[in-house]
Amino acid sequence: MDGHLKTPYDPRTFRALTWHDHTQAFADGSDSPRAYLERCLETVDAREPVVKAFPAINKDGARAAADAATARWRAGTPLSPIDGLPIAIKDLLETRDMPTQMGSAAFTGAFPKRDNAAVWALRKAGAVVLAKTVTAELGGTHPGPTTNPFDPARTPGGSSSGSAAAVAARMVPAAIGTHVGGSIIRPAAYCGNVALKPSQGALNRGERMSTSMSTHGPHAGCIEDMWQVAIEIAKRAGGDRDYRALKGPDTAPAAARPGRLMVLETAGWERVDAATKAAFAELLGRLKASGVELVDRRGDAGVEAFEKVILDAEEIATDVTLWENRWGWRNMVDEHGDKISHRLRKGLEKAEAMAPADYEALLDRRAAAQAAHQNAATLADCAITLSCPGPAPLWDASAADADDVRRPTGDAIFNYPSSMLFAPVVTIPMMAVDGMPVGMQLMGRPGDDAKVTGLARWILENVEPVAGD
Amino acid sequence: MDGHLKTPYDPRTFRALTWHDHTQAFADGSDSPRAYLERCLETVDAREPVVKAFPAINKDGARAAADAATARWRAGTPLSPIDGLPIAIKDLLETRDMPTQMGSAAFTGAFPKRDNAAVWALRKAGAVVLAKTVTAELGGTHPGPTTNPFDPARTPGGSSSGSAAAVAARMVPAAIGTHVGGSIIRPAAYCGNVALKPSQGALNRGERMSTSMSTHGPHAGCIEDMWQVAIEIAKRAGGDRDYRALKGPDTAPAAARPGRLMVLETAGWERVDAATKAAFAELLGRLKASGVELVDRRGDAGVEAFEKVILDAEEIATDVTLWENRWGWRNMVDEHGDKISHRLRKGLEKAEAMAPADYEALLDRRAAAQAAHQNAATLADCAITLSCPGPAPLWDASAADADDVRRPTGDAIFNYPSSMLFAPVVTIPMMAVDGMPVGMQLMGRPGDDAKVTGLARWILENVEPVAGD
Repeated sequence: MDGHLKTPYDPRTFRALTWHDHTQAFADGSDSPRAYLERCLETVDAREPVVKAFPAINKDGARAAADAATARWRAGTPLSPIDGLPIAIKDLLETRDMPTQMGSAAFTGAFPKRDNAAVWALRKAGAVVLAKTVTAELGGTHPGPTTNPFDPARTPGGSSSGSAAAVAARMVPAAIGTHVGGSIIRPAAYCGNVALKPSQGALNRGERMSTSMSTHGPHAGCIEDMWQVAIEIAKRAGGDRDYRALKGPDTAPAAARPGRLMVLETAGWERVDAATKAAFAELLGRLKASGVELVDRRGDAGVEAFEKVILDAEEIATDVTLWENRWGWRNMVDEHGDKISHRLRKGLEKAEAMAPADYEALLDRRAAAQAAHQNAATLADCAITLSCPGPAPLWDASAADADDVRRPTGDAIFNYPSSMLFAPVVTIPMMAVDGMPVGMQLMGRPGDDAKVTGLARWILENVEPVAGD
Repeated sequence: MDGHLKTPYDPRTFRALTWHDHTQAFADGSDSPRAYLERCLETVDAREPVVKAFPAINKDGARAAADAATARWRAGTPLSPIDGLPIAIKDLLETRDMPTQMGSAAFTGAFPKRDNAAVWALRKAGAVVLAKTVTAELGGTHPGPTTNPFDPARTPGGSSSGSAAAVAARMVPAAIGTHVGGSIIRPAAYCGNVALKPSQGALNRGERMSTSMSTHGPHAGCIEDMWQVAIEIAKRAGGDRDYRALKGPDTAPAAARPGRLMVLETAGWERVDAATKAAFAELLGRLKASGVELVDRRGDAGVEAFEKVILDAEEIATDVTLWENRWGWRNMVDEHGDKISHRLRKGLEKAEAMAPADYEALLDRRAAAQAAHQNAATLADCAITLSCPGPAPLWDASAADADDVRRPTGDAIFNYPSSMLFAPVVTIPMMAVDGMPVGMQLMGRPGDDAKVTGLARWILENVEPVAGD
């Protein structure tokens, strides 16, 4: 690795790429979506050789779409506030104009020429679908080639590796990720993004609905763009079958000061390094100083009880998803053999040892946890905790296949509770540890996406981030 | 059409092909699954040229599987009571050894080499996957070539046209269908099958879960085989993601006399012809004479109220499914153009005029109806009504594309309530009208699959069918 490519992250000075603050200039002609795109492409040329976020890019298609958006802004008829926004799409989602290879050797060159429902909605809103982004194999834990934009010796996190890295490298202002075991929130937190893992079902997954805890969600450089991308999808494609669409205002919810936050130090807390613990403690101190009341298990028996409820979230979320993926994976392994990673095949082995009754017992435990989460509504406006147990770990690409590397894209332990609870989460970049971003997350109850977004926005706008120096 | 191929149906004398009553002979060596299969294949040779149930058949694979089953029965180690049972699979479900063409010109020759979760489970139980069965285009209403085994001038119903016809023609003892708008129950009723449309989610659809009201379910010649096929799938593959698997005994539930049945004469009753109304009235009279209490809207305000609840079931079930299919269909039409029927494209047009709020309003109405169904539990053991509004209609294959033929596979008006309510239904062949089968159905509350099966079994075994002569 080139040591000189390491760019220490400082949340006080890092400026992410944003879109919403350019639209006035698109309307008055002093800037244009086409010019914005060209600036993105310059950044792509500069950063992509090391970041490796994009398994496919469609520059010609993007330029044509940006020109059309430019004309609409000039004519005063943009399709939406994101008309012309260059966006990158996790390579699990089908796109009619680029291959969909899902980070799997078994799908090299696969080009289904279809649009996922969310991609369809983004195009209807005028977004410029620029590139596909690297995913860990089939959305799991077996990593792809993407590196962390702040230090190429570290993982960007996964499975939405390329989406998080593309935004962090300022190659695009927003990207779509997907999430079961922390696949949006963890990489976003490692890469200094803001990101939304919406309430379960709130953004239409189209034909990607064979598992019960996956969601689509946006990575972005700011709250405004994050929300705008999400709500434009929801307005056009709705939610999953059988679910309500994301609800909230037409533009980002206003900043709202949290009254009381529930601090969670749940399963995995013992794995957090001292520097990250100190940074989070400092952040909590600043929140308190800003007038936000904090409750934790030491001071509130209700919080302690709720922490116990989510203690098994990793097991429940992981095993539910293993069972749900069982037949799809079996077909892939039978058809593609050793093009499927050893890591995934081990997961399949575990799934195939399960019986329907095991799955139903997990559903019962999940339902009980969800009921307890509803009952915890009186404790606080929402929960606050780390988005990841420290900065992105160092990793060695050559060790990707090694069995002893449990999770080469980093530890998702703080991300399973929201998956299990179908709960909305917003991560925001409020800390640096060891020169790397570390995110904090707010988790609300299902349907509270807009509320959580407004609370997160208030923190971003009113609390000094912890620079860790 | 050859008039001489018409074989008037008489429920008193028609003997469907059965399996469960052969297993003792398989064990003692006086019969074998291989010999059973060969008898099926003889029937296939005799009937298939006119019935046209199978777009693909795998005789070699079936013979090998039947030989393996034969050896297991002889050794006293059958994999399950359906080890060796020749079964046909609706051509919407993927099968690794036969093409999956979904009744669509856009998928001619498609051969994904994958097994649907339910197919996988059937193979694990030893079932011999003999053939794929004709489905109306993509499970909709645009018909395939299958004819009714009792009169080739009539539709077998749809969309599980081939599954119903294959069982009625005694080519296989059981077949798998799928159901949203009556696609199992209606063709089964037109073809004299017994069939189960299980509680929503009770049989794992694998990767076919993009709509919220589709189910897999068995067509069979008798209750015993119907139940056995269903429970063997449920034991191995469980239910849909997020749903409980079919629950019930290891072999068919015992016959149980209904105490009280709620007679439904709901939306569409005015379309029922006089002969069918008379046959159903006669059947109800026989039930009463057997000691079953009947309540209807004339005698019970609760029944009247419940009939009002399900009055809009067709609209709700149809429009929910249109919305849910919207993106998949749009992709197909964009990719395959006029290989997709005009009929389906008209549906897509309607779907694309809907907004997320329209869908959510339908979900609200559906949820209200489901709650009312739960509250109707006190009225009766379950509901009884016609499975179809009369015998299978005559149809002209050349009119398949004509816009004025609203539903060439017959009217599903009596099938939407159970879809909307996620309710289990068993249809049994208890009537003949105009020399054709007409089914009656029992509908229970979600989870009551075994109960409804036991009640239906009692009626089959204890009430003289109405021969209509």
